[in-house]
Amino acid sequence: MNLRILRPNEFQLDRRIDNENEEQQTAARNIVERVRSEGDRAVLALTAEHDGVTLTADRLRVTAEEIAGAYGAVDEAFLEAIRAAAVNIRAYHEKQKKQSWIDAQPNGTTLGQLIRPLARVGVYVPGGKAAYPSSVLMNIIPAVVAGVKDIVMVTPPATGGKEGIDPYILVAAAEAGVSEVYRVGGAQAIAALAYGTETIPAVDKIVGPGNIYVALAKRFVYGVVDIDSIAGPSEIVVIADEGANAAYAAADLLSQAEHDEMASAVLLTPSRAFAEAVQAEVERQLETLPRRDIAAESIRRHGAILLTSSLDEAAAISNRLAPEHLELLVADPLGWVGRIENAGAIFLGPYSAESVGDYFAGPNHVLPTNGTARFFSPLGVDTFLKRSSLISYSREALLENGDRIMTLARREGLEGHARAIQVRLDAERGE
Amino acid sequence: MNLRILRPNEFQLDRRIDNENEEQQTAARNIVERVRSEGDRAVLALTAEHDGVTLTADRLRVTAEEIAGAYGAVDEAFLEAIRAAAVNIRAYHEKQKKQSWIDAQPNGTTLGQLIRPLARVGVYVPGGKAAYPSSVLMNIIPAVVAGVKDIVMVTPPATGGKEGIDPYILVAAAEAGVSEVYRVGGAQAIAALAYGTETIPAVDKIVGPGNIYVALAKRFVYGVVDIDSIAGPSEIVVIADEGANAAYAAADLLSQAEHDEMASAVLLTPSRAFAEAVQAEVERQLETLPRRDIAAESIRRHGAILLTSSLDEAAAISNRLAPEHLELLVADPLGWVGRIENAGAIFLGPYSAESVGDYFAGPNHVLPTNGTARFFSPLGVDTFLKRSSLISYSREALLENGDRIMTLARREGLEGHARAIQVRLDAERGE
Repeated sequence: MNLRILRPNEFQLDRRIDNENEEQQTAARNIVERVRSEGDRAVLALTAEHDGVTLTADRLRVTAEEIAGAYGAVDEAFLEAIRAAAVNIRAYHEKQKKQSWIDAQPNGTTLGQLIRPLARVGVYVPGGKAAYPSSVLMNIIPAVVAGVKDIVMVTPPATGGKEGIDPYILVAAAEAGVSEVYRVGGAQAIAALAYGTETIPAVDKIVGPGNIYVALAKRFVYGVVDIDSIAGPSEIVVIADEGANAAYAAADLLSQAEHDEMASAVLLTPSRAFAEAVQAEVERQLETLPRRDIAAESIRRHGAILLTSSLDEAAAISNRLAPEHLELLVADPLGWVGRIENAGAIFLGPYSAESVGDYFAGPNHVLPTNGTARFFSPLGVDTFLKRSSLISYSREALLENGDRIMTLARREGLEGHARAIQVRLDAERGE
Repeated sequence: MNLRILRPNEFQLDRRIDNENEEQQTAARNIVERVRSEGDRAVLALTAEHDGVTLTADRLRVTAEEIAGAYGAVDEAFLEAIRAAAVNIRAYHEKQKKQSWIDAQPNGTTLGQLIRPLARVGVYVPGGKAAYPSSVLMNIIPAVVAGVKDIVMVTPPATGGKEGIDPYILVAAAEAGVSEVYRVGGAQAIAALAYGTETIPAVDKIVGPGNIYVALAKRFVYGVVDIDSIAGPSEIVVIADEGANAAYAAADLLSQAEHDEMASAVLLTPSRAFAEAVQAEVERQLETLPRRDIAAESIRRHGAILLTSSLDEAAAISNRLAPEHLELLVADPLGWVGRIENAGAIFLGPYSAESVGDYFAGPNHVLPTNGTARFFSPLGVDTFLKRSSLISYSREALLENGDRIMTLARREGLEGHARAIQVRLDAERGE
């Protein structure tokens, strides 16, 4: 399987969004409506139906004992590594915190902005092979740092009649600072978080990835609660000069390609020699990759090496692609950052593999996908904050500006708005 | 028309969202697809069809001369008032700006967060009676403060064959700092901004209110570009004690009710005497209000005075309603702010009428509606910024942490992620 070497104008990265079908939409909607009207009863019935697990309401919540027990089932190396990662993620997100502020003027005008955490947040964690402890950290820790009091995780019970949840997921959640965990998945979990049931509390926002039914249910409850943006297939762009290490570049491209067939890995380089070296390395490394079928298909469908006329052209193409991950394997990576307009995360130099950011360094790995880095941002503390404006006018400030306010209100034909000022000016000027 | 006096448990503020019908969805979708494939030609044909205005492509853009001419058509009092408002709005939003940051550790780990403006933003401004100069300021100024280079305003030409645009809108846009103005409205304007045409540039995000077709078109192009949240009907909650001024409270409730029949105005007070005084004032003031039919219908359908057992209960109810606007007409308004969890904007004391914030004080009047202040925030500088994470690991940092990263990657079954680290450790440790 060769990674194609192309000229830039020969390559087009399509938006890769699955068009969900009507049937799936109806199914997700029906589940949401059922949970909304029947609460726990619907949650339990749907869990039996979809996960093959028969529960009672008092077994929905994962107990403190189960979480403590999970620690006994994970290995020491994992525990040490996830704790080190959690420290880094916490430290990075602490720097994103913002303060409320107030601005008081001499005439008695006082304005401000309150910044406060959401009260309750739901975190969806998929089951089975898509259950990633790293994603548990990346979704929960920013909420903890924001100051969210109740962080409610939902995740499906193991299929086939088992109530259990992957101990690595439970340990990651506990280390991150989760408040409550419920064994419920699918669209029924999203509905329970949006509307609440007798057992599962309603939240203000739901984050976390899931299958198509989870995504559709999230879109359906949007407005009742807030949701994060729907994750698309992920991508990496590597910009490299002739001095870069081809084996490193190839390994990083493959680490993205192994995610799924829809993932995209693209190298931009002005050096044909480097392009060919990476092409050979990709072929060589692919041989022994456990997920080689997935990676090969991703590379065939959405991968390419683009030979650019210069690094400047490479930067321009990258800005158009607006990748989720961008690696700068160039001599002076920091010197190129200013030319990068659109990228979720930027990795500088030979030792900053994408994996470093996926698992460990501290910045969030929930990043804008599918070209949306033009306008979306990584998940962060902001995701879990809300702002309120504060407005306090003194008598003096109102007397000084009341006529201007009425001029603007009357221009818009909103006499009631003007009279709310007039009634005050009349009273105060009459005194 | 009496504003009902009720006990809290007798009142329910429903979510007031119009369910758009299939026909409207199809119409909006067809317009978007047509503009996407035919560009200017479709825009001009749709403008002739919907606005009754026949244009050529070279007339789509409003010229500098037209904008200069608009200044001759507005009165001095308006110009003075809108300039004063713009100064205040700019000053408030300047305080929302954020800085990029970097954090460099002794072992060579350097992490950062780049905060940058979106490159291009579109602002939709409705035509006719819904064309509000104040909204032009509120949508454009935060984008200017964020540093957005291209701010593209679109607004329909006057109906009935006239190409002209309300001069007050043009002057407000110029004062706010708009880059370009195009005379195009409806779903065709949204499509043009999302995909670009020969004449109208594609943008990264579209903000601003519009009719149902505009809202549906925005939802349809979401993902191609970002959009602001869809504005719902607006609301005010007034919390007042027995010492408040009933005429002020009534005027403020009516200023909200006059917006449209779906608007909601609710007073929360523990004082029956005050409740009755406000009820009488509303009736009296409503008599002479030009928009009394709209205000009376709003009050009948979505208005109420709720007699609470205490101010604490009033605060708790307000938190459940999560109003767009909240006025605290109480003896110690600042002392109550900490009890308010959910509100778009909080107005303190007798001189801070909602109109003060709608037009003049500086905080944005684009606020979360329909109970969404639980999780949404006012429009602001953030609306026009994007973040990118920076990750730079030194050789030392990677050697120190590489094993941990591989442990986590292998736990998730992503061997390619682990090998991207392994290939580096092997090379570096082998040296």
